[in-house]
Amino acid sequence: MAIDLSYDPVVQDVIDKTSEFVRSHVLPIEEKFAGDIAAAGGDELRLELRDRARDLGILAPHAPVEYGGLGLNMSDRSPVFEAAGYSVFGPIALHIGAPDEGNVHMLAHVADAEQKEKYLAPLARGDVRSAFAMTEPAPGAGSDPAALRTAAVKVDGGWKINGDKWFITGADGAGFFIIMARTAGEPGDRGGATMFLAPADTPGITVGRHINTIDRAMIGGHCEVAFRDVFVPDEDVLGEVDEGYRYAQVRLGPARMTHVMRWMGSANRARDIAIDYVARREAFGGKLGDLGMIQQMVADNEIDLAAARSLLVKACWVLDQGGHGGDETSIAKTFAAEAFSRVVDRSIQMCGGMGVSDDLPLARLQRELRPFQIYDGPSEVHRWALAKRAVGKARKAAAAGGKP
Amino acid sequence: MAIDLSYDPVVQDVIDKTSEFVRSHVLPIEEKFAGDIAAAGGDELRLELRDRARDLGILAPHAPVEYGGLGLNMSDRSPVFEAAGYSVFGPIALHIGAPDEGNVHMLAHVADAEQKEKYLAPLARGDVRSAFAMTEPAPGAGSDPAALRTAAVKVDGGWKINGDKWFITGADGAGFFIIMARTAGEPGDRGGATMFLAPADTPGITVGRHINTIDRAMIGGHCEVAFRDVFVPDEDVLGEVDEGYRYAQVRLGPARMTHVMRWMGSANRARDIAIDYVARREAFGGKLGDLGMIQQMVADNEIDLAAARSLLVKACWVLDQGGHGGDETSIAKTFAAEAFSRVVDRSIQMCGGMGVSDDLPLARLQRELRPFQIYDGPSEVHRWALAKRAVGKARKAAAAGGKP
Amino acid sequence: MAIDLSYDPVVQDVIDKTSEFVRSHVLPIEEKFAGDIAAAGGDELRLELRDRARDLGILAPHAPVEYGGLGLNMSDRSPVFEAAGYSVFGPIALHIGAPDEGNVHMLAHVADAEQKEKYLAPLARGDVRSAFAMTEPAPGAGSDPAALRTAAVKVDGGWKINGDKWFITGADGAGFFIIMARTAGEPGDRGGATMFLAPADTPGITVGRHINTIDRAMIGGHCEVAFRDVFVPDEDVLGEVDEGYRYAQVRLGPARMTHVMRWMGSANRARDIAIDYVARREAFGGKLGDLGMIQQMVADNEIDLAAARSLLVKACWVLDQGGHGGDETSIAKTFAAEAFSRVVDRSIQMCGGMGVSDDLPLARLQRELRPFQIYDGPSEVHRWALAKRAVGKARKAAAAGGKP
Amino acid sequence: MAIDLSYDPVVQDVIDKTSEFVRSHVLPIEEKFAGDIAAAGGDELRLELRDRARDLGILAPHAPVEYGGLGLNMSDRSPVFEAAGYSVFGPIALHIGAPDEGNVHMLAHVADAEQKEKYLAPLARGDVRSAFAMTEPAPGAGSDPAALRTAAVKVDGGWKINGDKWFITGADGAGFFIIMARTAGEPGDRGGATMFLAPADTPGITVGRHINTIDRAMIGGHCEVAFRDVFVPDEDVLGEVDEGYRYAQVRLGPARMTHVMRWMGSANRARDIAIDYVARREAFGGKLGDLGMIQQMVADNEIDLAAARSLLVKACWVLDQGGHGGDETSIAKTFAAEAFSRVVDRSIQMCGGMGVSDDLPLARLQRELRPFQIYDGPSEVHRWALAKRAVGKARKAAAAGGKP
Repeated sequence: MAIDLSYDPVVQDVIDKTSEFVRSHVLPIEEKFAGDIAAAGGDELRLELRDRARDLGILAPHAPVEYGGLGLNMSDRSPVFEAAGYSVFGPIALHIGAPDEGNVHMLAHVADAEQKEKYLAPLARGDVRSAFAMTEPAPGAGSDPAALRTAAVKVDGGWKINGDKWFITGADGAGFFIIMARTAGEPGDRGGATMFLAPADTPGITVGRHINTIDRAMIGGHCEVAFRDVFVPDEDVLGEVDEGYRYAQVRLGPARMTHVMRWMGSANRARDIAIDYVARREAFGGKLGDLGMIQQMVADNEIDLAAARSLLVKACWVLDQGGHGGDETSIAKTFAAEAFSRVVDRSIQMCGGMGVSDDLPLARLQRELRPFQIYDGPSEVHRWALAKRAVGKARKAAAAGGKP
Repeated sequence: MAIDLSYDPVVQDVIDKTSEFVRSHVLPIEEKFAGDIAAAGGDELRLELRDRARDLGILAPHAPVEYGGLGLNMSDRSPVFEAAGYSVFGPIALHIGAPDEGNVHMLAHVADAEQKEKYLAPLARGDVRSAFAMTEPAPGAGSDPAALRTAAVKVDGGWKINGDKWFITGADGAGFFIIMARTAGEPGDRGGATMFLAPADTPGITVGRHINTIDRAMIGGHCEVAFRDVFVPDEDVLGEVDEGYRYAQVRLGPARMTHVMRWMGSANRARDIAIDYVARREAFGGKLGDLGMIQQMVADNEIDLAAARSLLVKACWVLDQGGHGGDETSIAKTFAAEAFSRVVDRSIQMCGGMGVSDDLPLARLQRELRPFQIYDGPSEVHRWALAKRAVGKARKAAAAGGKP
Repeated sequence: MAIDLSYDPVVQDVIDKTSEFVRSHVLPIEEKFAGDIAAAGGDELRLELRDRARDLGILAPHAPVEYGGLGLNMSDRSPVFEAAGYSVFGPIALHIGAPDEGNVHMLAHVADAEQKEKYLAPLARGDVRSAFAMTEPAPGAGSDPAALRTAAVKVDGGWKINGDKWFITGADGAGFFIIMARTAGEPGDRGGATMFLAPADTPGITVGRHINTIDRAMIGGHCEVAFRDVFVPDEDVLGEVDEGYRYAQVRLGPARMTHVMRWMGSANRARDIAIDYVARREAFGGKLGDLGMIQQMVADNEIDLAAARSLLVKACWVLDQGGHGGDETSIAKTFAAEAFSRVVDRSIQMCGGMGVSDDLPLARLQRELRPFQIYDGPSEVHRWALAKRAVGKARKAAAAGGKP
Repeated sequence: MAIDLSYDPVVQDVIDKTSEFVRSHVLPIEEKFAGDIAAAGGDELRLELRDRARDLGILAPHAPVEYGGLGLNMSDRSPVFEAAGYSVFGPIALHIGAPDEGNVHMLAHVADAEQKEKYLAPLARGDVRSAFAMTEPAPGAGSDPAALRTAAVKVDGGWKINGDKWFITGADGAGFFIIMARTAGEPGDRGGATMFLAPADTPGITVGRHINTIDRAMIGGHCEVAFRDVFVPDEDVLGEVDEGYRYAQVRLGPARMTHVMRWMGSANRARDIAIDYVARREAFGGKLGDLGMIQQMVADNEIDLAAARSLLVKACWVLDQGGHGGDETSIAKTFAAEAFSRVVDRSIQMCGGMGVSDDLPLARLQRELRPFQIYDGPSEVHRWALAKRAVGKARKAAAAGGKP
């Protein structure tokens, strides 16, 4: 036991291969789509890229080895995902994009053997995509999951689900859904949710309109999905009845961190583009990159990225130790989401008129990065949770007679 | 002489009519274009809206009365432009968008009688649009105007112009160009520029590709324009030869402020949408608008908008007094551009998932507002100019034996 | 009616004289006290400086002419107070420091003729100082005035007051107190307060310890004051019984703004010292003032000061028009308090090691400026009030069928 | 090799003992000095505290085991120093304050056997204190070490040193000095410096006035020191002649990080005091700690501290691996220094009037923390160095044909 921040050579090899693959193979493809990265090019391209990644031995670094993945823990998958995120198509290629990556993670932890065979195996291979149907339109479950309104009622041999979801990432084209529905209590109660597995062609499931958002790269979009008398047999209940919120936590902490990993890659790219620009571009009798105000932006980008990465390393390690990581993941997510937006905004500013044009991908990266301050819990909700715990601890300490 | 921040009833009437016109007539039209506001709907719509504005007596509040405008000075046009800017189509309707508005301003100050008849009159009426061809691709005139490379050489009866421009707003469909070209000195000298007037169909003028930028509302786009052996007769030289930089200053200070006015309208709208949202939306057992972190964003929006407006009022008053207003316009522009981006970003955050979706126009407004930190002089250039003057004054004071 | 931001020559003359007086006479005295500016040098010095200011015709610019002042309204007193604030001893010299200045303002508006003769006349002349006894230790009236606990009960011929106050500025050495006490309702009610006038030697009034704060310049300190069976005759009730909160508003809005005016002077001085330093100091083969990161700080100081001043001008004008100015004074106060701390912090940073040493007065100015983010309503309370009103307006508009 | 962020039980024991010692023994002593922490109570108290720490087995965790220390590397000493820094007297007690701690580090790396016996041994035991005489008044070596003017000339059997230093921490009462003097080249050259060891009573060394700075806790102050014909024999040259800048780097990187460690402790304390306050304090019908704007400050403190600590862990690990750590230490230092000032400033704001009073130690902690943005290289110099390296790398990559 002692501080160690190095990676095993086996992991380092995956990182290097991923980085090389993204730069030599994925980025040129992304560039061809420039200005139209909707759905990361679609499923056909996705399967092509997947096959290539599999051949290179870098597919699904997070998935269990028995299902064809590399079985890397959170700490080790982190730099791989970051390398993949350098292109918005990279996570698709390695099959580590949201929500599949988080769904693999949850199924590996919660599903029983039959469910693993039926749902996890094809998902881990990338033969199908999946969706996680939790978020609901107002006044349902959004930032406040306790407001869950979609309901499942017990029927003979299974459950019948009714409700409306939205912002369901990847729904269009998904092979199956993990559905969060209330099985006890009332909207506002923080209990009584259950998770259900259902193939996409189950009668009563309808994928509706895409909610157009400023980010465009997510394959399968962010969709409205309606559930009308959807029957789920008992064997497709994921884990225990009424334990849905607990499983959601299993998924959400790590999923939050893998978002940070991937978008760190995008932020790195914005940074690189801007430094390259100011290193070359002349103005005011010299290079832009030698001007103090530009240097300040360069340095602030370095600081923001280093801090985000260090917080991520800490959070992943806590999760790998079996910790809940509530504070660490909220801190890393909140800082990183805001830092990435600062990085890409400074990068735009450094490039002047080019920065706001399509001649550089910076404005596009800004659109992909901005929503992360809202997705996976808005910064305000994470700050509220952090403060509640910190103040709660202080109260307990004070009650115990302690003082700072 | 005494502080007065009120408007004459005549001016107030124009403000009120503009505000009413934009909300009842222009916004509904803009909404029909939602998601596709490119070029503010095009010239046909522009002419329709113009006629309506003219009928209401609010067309061209900045243009001289003798050319059909209302002749308002900077101070008085400010709240009118702000009211018009509430819709991105509003400035088109009142014919006060960039670059026409600034070109009207400059022609009114610099053009001779014949030039006024030929160029200013149809422009002030909105019968034609115009473009101001100054900015050049690297290594030409960008943030540093002294790098001007487009050159005009004296020929019999006029001048022959050669060079390449880019980011020429409104070029596509413009009736004429005001061209900035070097008539003396070398790139890097801060002198020897001249302004030329040329109808768009002058041989040798070619409007090239649109530079796609994140803002979309500008009619006529931001284009590349090539000038190849363009002949401009002596009578179409605007003002004196070699005095172009001086005239550019006449244009740029006020143009900077009218940008602030219009985009203040957009920022107001973002603020209004977000407050309306949080005032209604329930979460965590109450309304979003009653939560402290949301209230902080609401208040910061109020503060940013009030400060931007107050700085604008000051700068306009200085310009109206005949002052150069270098410091005041740089301060107002720099603060406002950054403040507007903060306002719209907070507004997005306040609306959560809706904020990053097309279901609200916030993301679109963010795209229109972001470039203002770069257009009309990046913030860094304004800060550099401000600091240079401030430090210069301190040096003079120190040399004179003064101390703080 | 039209925008005018100029000052009458008479006012300009007071500004210029004040500026000259402070620089040639007051600053050299302040410098002698360097490192020990406690209580602005004490009452003896105060009276000397007052006499000098009276001789120059710049004493008490805010006081009614009939009581020896210059009778300037809020707008006109603003630049005078700012000029005086360039030295922390300046407001003492002109007799415009807190709380006397606000007490003069309130007595002029609320006191009856006899009270004016007894209390206002000697105060306006600066023969005595005064204190405003409102703030109480927890759980009493602090940021939340409704928590008022000091109580006055009706007795024969007057009132008997009991309670404890703290943070009572100027209490030590004050000639009289204005006491805010509850005459109806319970702590938590926003009503039922009354203001009482009482000479400092009234039996039962005890000035206790000074609360040592990071600011040191306030004459009379910030003290604890105990009121034990203090008898106040009916004729010394200020205004109407139970109307104390209303009168407090009469005092607080303007008092907030005069704080901004005075501390703007301190911020100006910090700025000037730092620019002077970087304009002279060599490093890295040039002058500090020519380095981009330093220029950014110089420019940001200019922007912050200009914005604070513009917001102040607006708020004063609204108050002069008879407006309540709740929003405008909260905005100006909140922005200015934070901006001044930024300005002095940047100024320190610009001066490096000298900036944190007593060799320059910057660290001292930082200590005087920091508390303003808390005094006169913490920034959070002003933001809360701003948001409440803004959201309230949106709710009303929505209820009326409006939409943004 | 794999990410590990845990500490060996032996190290954890030192952390725990230090934390317990500081809270139960050191803090109560510090509190007795409240308002007068100058020089951390002086040398007598220092020796008492040292003996106590030695008895507990936590003295000098950084010093080599053969000289009585615990021999902890950078990574392991980090949480110990942080625990000690919770009181400003803690580092004195463990004998890990600046500059002694850095001098021990450098002597252990550079001194020869005799020098170690003569200088390091008594220093490691805490029998004497020491000073590092590098910084000079303008136009000498400050932020720009190359400006070094103090000169050493070769004489028979040794060197003769002349020059003036200032901001020499710990000089008053130091047992010996490490003197940086130019032995080749001219001011402005980045070479030709040599380090010399000299007992404080060497003829020609005069400790002058203390430069009063806003921080007060440093034992021995920040002093001016004059060197007049100071003779240093050849055997007291530290390391090689003309290699002083290289050794300075050996000292500065780690010294920068130990500053971060210690001041992290102070920032933790500010955070704890403020949370304790808002957890108890009632206002507006509830606890301050349940209000959203307060929660935001609580959360931002958590985020800032976590990010600073994570960056520190990274930098220490790089140094422990033998890396130069130029980027990592600059990033950690710059972020941490600014973050600590934000933390203490928010803590003050959270406590309102109490926050700016001496009734809480927050204002005092702010004074100790602010200078760190300037000491050990101002933030601007670190940002400049970071940017220079980043832009330089981009240039090399571009020259090699790479693109981002």
